[in-house]
Amino acid sequence: MDYIISDRISTLQPSAIREILKSASDPDVISLAAGNPSAQAFPSEALNRIMAATMAETPVLALQYSVSEGYGPLLQTIADFFTQQEIFPHENAVLPPITLDQCLVVSGAQQALDFAARCLCNEGDTVICESPSFIGALNAFRSYNVNLAGVELQSDGMNIEDLEQALQHNPRTRFIYIIPNFQNPTGITTSLAKRQAIYDLAHRYNVMIVEDNPYGDLRFCGDPLPSLKTLDEDGRVIYCGSFSKIIAPGLRLAYVIAPPPVIAKFTVAKQCADVHTNMLTQIICRRFLIEEDISAHLVHLKTLYKSKCDLMLSCIDAHFPRTVACTHPEGGLFLWATLPPSVDMLAFCRQAAARKVAVVPGNAFNVDDTMPSSSFRLNFSTPSDNQIRKGIEILGTLLHEIIEV
Amino acid sequence: MDYIISDRISTLQPSAIREILKSASDPDVISLAAGNPSAQAFPSEALNRIMAATMAETPVLALQYSVSEGYGPLLQTIADFFTQQEIFPHENAVLPPITLDQCLVVSGAQQALDFAARCLCNEGDTVICESPSFIGALNAFRSYNVNLAGVELQSDGMNIEDLEQALQHNPRTRFIYIIPNFQNPTGITTSLAKRQAIYDLAHRYNVMIVEDNPYGDLRFCGDPLPSLKTLDEDGRVIYCGSFSKIIAPGLRLAYVIAPPPVIAKFTVAKQCADVHTNMLTQIICRRFLIEEDISAHLVHLKTLYKSKCDLMLSCIDAHFPRTVACTHPEGGLFLWATLPPSVDMLAFCRQAAARKVAVVPGNAFNVDDTMPSSSFRLNFSTPSDNQIRKGIEILGTLLHEIIEV
Repeated sequence: MDYIISDRISTLQPSAIREILKSASDPDVISLAAGNPSAQAFPSEALNRIMAATMAETPVLALQYSVSEGYGPLLQTIADFFTQQEIFPHENAVLPPITLDQCLVVSGAQQALDFAARCLCNEGDTVICESPSFIGALNAFRSYNVNLAGVELQSDGMNIEDLEQALQHNPRTRFIYIIPNFQNPTGITTSLAKRQAIYDLAHRYNVMIVEDNPYGDLRFCGDPLPSLKTLDEDGRVIYCGSFSKIIAPGLRLAYVIAPPPVIAKFTVAKQCADVHTNMLTQIICRRFLIEEDISAHLVHLKTLYKSKCDLMLSCIDAHFPRTVACTHPEGGLFLWATLPPSVDMLAFCRQAAARKVAVVPGNAFNVDDTMPSSSFRLNFSTPSDNQIRKGIEILGTLLHEIIEV
Repeated sequence: MDYIISDRISTLQPSAIREILKSASDPDVISLAAGNPSAQAFPSEALNRIMAATMAETPVLALQYSVSEGYGPLLQTIADFFTQQEIFPHENAVLPPITLDQCLVVSGAQQALDFAARCLCNEGDTVICESPSFIGALNAFRSYNVNLAGVELQSDGMNIEDLEQALQHNPRTRFIYIIPNFQNPTGITTSLAKRQAIYDLAHRYNVMIVEDNPYGDLRFCGDPLPSLKTLDEDGRVIYCGSFSKIIAPGLRLAYVIAPPPVIAKFTVAKQCADVHTNMLTQIICRRFLIEEDISAHLVHLKTLYKSKCDLMLSCIDAHFPRTVACTHPEGGLFLWATLPPSVDMLAFCRQAAARKVAVVPGNAFNVDDTMPSSSFRLNFSTPSDNQIRKGIEILGTLLHEIIEV
């Protein structure tokens, strides 16, 4: 039979990246295309120990239905964790305490982004985002028939003039979507000055900000910066934090910190979407955060990722032509390489795939993915050190062939 | 600041039941209002054993990102489990094999219902449902600005004449939503004749059927009936199964069986909604289904729930006035009691709450919950046997006072 599919879903295609990842599961392929934490990053032993204790001590709590807001003790632990990680814009700045009615547990930060569009946007409303930006967010917004307006991302964050123009041209803008730390896909960090400028524009044009910070706890060099949430004086920032990159993504656990009226509506969305987040995982996560040495664990992760990032950058230095530009991220999982304008980026990605190295073509991250791009994304967290060396060497050889012809 | 909330979410209220459950967490209250499995129903020891083995043997698989469709081996196990549980309408009926592209793992059946509206309905389209029906489903549908058309539920399923009228009056109907076994809230089972009649009408009017079957594996008396999915000849039934009632709801694990083009669109929705379902839970569930004696476990659950249902019915027989009618479910978790028309049902529920017994007022399950109802829902799975005895006695005393006045 012919199936009638809703307008919001019928035009959406499966995520290009997830499709690439499927093909990259070929064991002969060196995948620099993923966005996965390193397998060495998982605190498996601690989690195993905590699971056994949880099932011995509170099995019914872990297995029974619970409330949509999230497991109360975890909400408190999240509020504490957020406050501990936070950096303040000046010495006298004090973050007002995060109360539990400002927190919601979600099944991965993707769900928070989905709820942002679901709760804040009618069809035809606008979301302003960095261009390029995270595909998963763009697709979630698209799935509510939202109009996406991309703002050029510079080496220190959004082009502020472009952002103001976008706000002027899109009076139905509901929120600005931003990944301020080690952005996906570029690895770029938004400077403090631009964070303040973006916040000020949001205030002037009375729009919300959705601050997506999955990588913020993985800063391995440079000075930490205050979140937009910390700059927020009138309750317009919805902060999305995640345990995917610092504990384990397979557990699907993340959180939202936002003003109580927003949390109340997100909670209604949560009831409709999946009732509540996995209770076993919520308990395990809470116990991990309070029973283990989370600071030491974060130091371990940062050391691991710094080493992998440094390795990839040094291989790029050794093998890539000088005309290929590359970001130098201060944390996170990704690098962003940009080819000279004369090179056909998509052809390069196809040829790389033929030589068994997978990267993600940059156009996939554009608001309009039919627009051309000269860039591609490289991931340094998932491949082994040997795969990084070999993969970058293969890409370098190919680039020299293409660029010298 | 004033928050602008989307039309789809702004009018939705938090689920009345979940709000009642919060107040029923007072330990002095006997709650007959929940919809939880019995705490005695959880196979905690087996799950604990399997978790430890999973974390020892495949920690990275359990903790890493995975594909949106669901863990492949679990998809196969689900296909097998569905086929094993299925009943066929006649001796020669053979269900075509369930292929993996017909299966999707979701984070609880609530997510499947949300996806049904998300993927199949534009704003203003119609969903036809039983009246009364499951609040969680109705709220998910409402959250996409879908028009709900309720069809009277009789003791053997929907009023077929009303259903045909609803189909005639609502040309933009996208699907019929039905809980054929031990329905929530009524405990009613749709007869085979009505299943066939509903399917035939769906065929004639070319609409889909969303078959929600969270309780089907909990039949404790009477003969099992074929699912609508098994009657489906042209791929119009979307079947939603769940592990919440037979393993544990806190793990949020359920599945969809539907034609491949529908699964493809649900998978796109899954990518947008939460990327994929908790991997640890998927592996545990799969191992539980293949390593444990699932038949013996289901017998244990059915014995437990039959005993609780029989106890509640015998207490009702002993204490309720004869003018209060009650359904006699063949499985599931709920009874549905209907007061004589002269009695104010909402006043009764409030008085019961004042006497520390919580039940759910029937209007909460109406398509329009401002419409009056004479019924209320009783749950027999969550309370202890003593709570059932005492709770029903208190309700009986109150009913005699109200009805004899």
